[in-house]
Amino acid sequence: MTLFSKIIAGEIPSYKIAEDKNFFAFLDIFPLVKGHVLVIPKIETDKFFDLEEEYLSKILVFAKPIAQAIEKSFPCNRCALSVVGLEVPHAHMHLLPINEIDDTNFTRGKLQISNEELKEIQQIIINNLK
Amino acid sequence: MTLFSKIIAGEIPSYKIAEDKNFFAFLDIFPLVKGHVLVIPKIETDKFFDLEEEYLSKILVFAKPIAQAIEKSFPCNRCALSVVGLEVPHAHMHLLPINEIDDTNFTRGKLQISNEELKEIQQIIINNLK
Repeated sequence: MTLFSKIIAGEIPSYKIAEDKNFFAFLDIFPLVKGHVLVIPKIETDKFFDLEEEYLSKILVFAKPIAQAIEKSFPCNRCALSVVGLEVPHAHMHLLPINEIDDTNFTRGKLQISNEELKEIQQIIINNLK
Repeated sequence: MTLFSKIIAGEIPSYKIAEDKNFFAFLDIFPLVKGHVLVIPKIETDKFFDLEEEYLSKILVFAKPIAQAIEKSFPCNRCALSVVGLEVPHAHMHLLPINEIDDTNFTRGKLQISNEELKEIQQIIINNLK
């Protein structure tokens, strides 16, 4: 079972943002920027582009309202999207509120955010998703 | 008319990889890595997540065989995907064959590639797309 499957199953706690039959969205606890969200399919596929058409055709439709809630929640130019996948072997998509290109740079240091602040960020995004 | 609409219309030449009713894919001529491809919708929408469901549900299905051809064409761990959008106000998706996280870092310098080599890269990807 991948780390992400454990998160979906609730075996590892997460700051959940949204969920449907096929996907699960939650806060990245090592965020590049405040409001960094991960969207994952509820199946274990390593490479994003190995996902079947059913998932590829639905993941951006699932992500759209979350991206728009993220945009409302944090001062930013727009919500960026990134799929890298060199670490956890379970396809995932990063949603990132960005103001400049360096906000998408995964080689820079991650933010250290307290559990309290992560809870606040979760609540802000969920409120804007309604 | 955006720069990308001019490319779609053929008013500005490009190294085309694939095209259908809704999307157009071509080489980024200022690539981060060899095999860097842009996928764009044939409508002018600035923000990616403002694209309508019709486009969001189809763009990854259109991109999948291209991403898999890119993976075959260049020695890489996998094909990454990135949507930033701070420069050209026409939604676009980057496809990038990557080996390490820095290969997705848009703050690093771009490669300088001759027209001859761009033509070769185009042909390699197209051959692997067949």
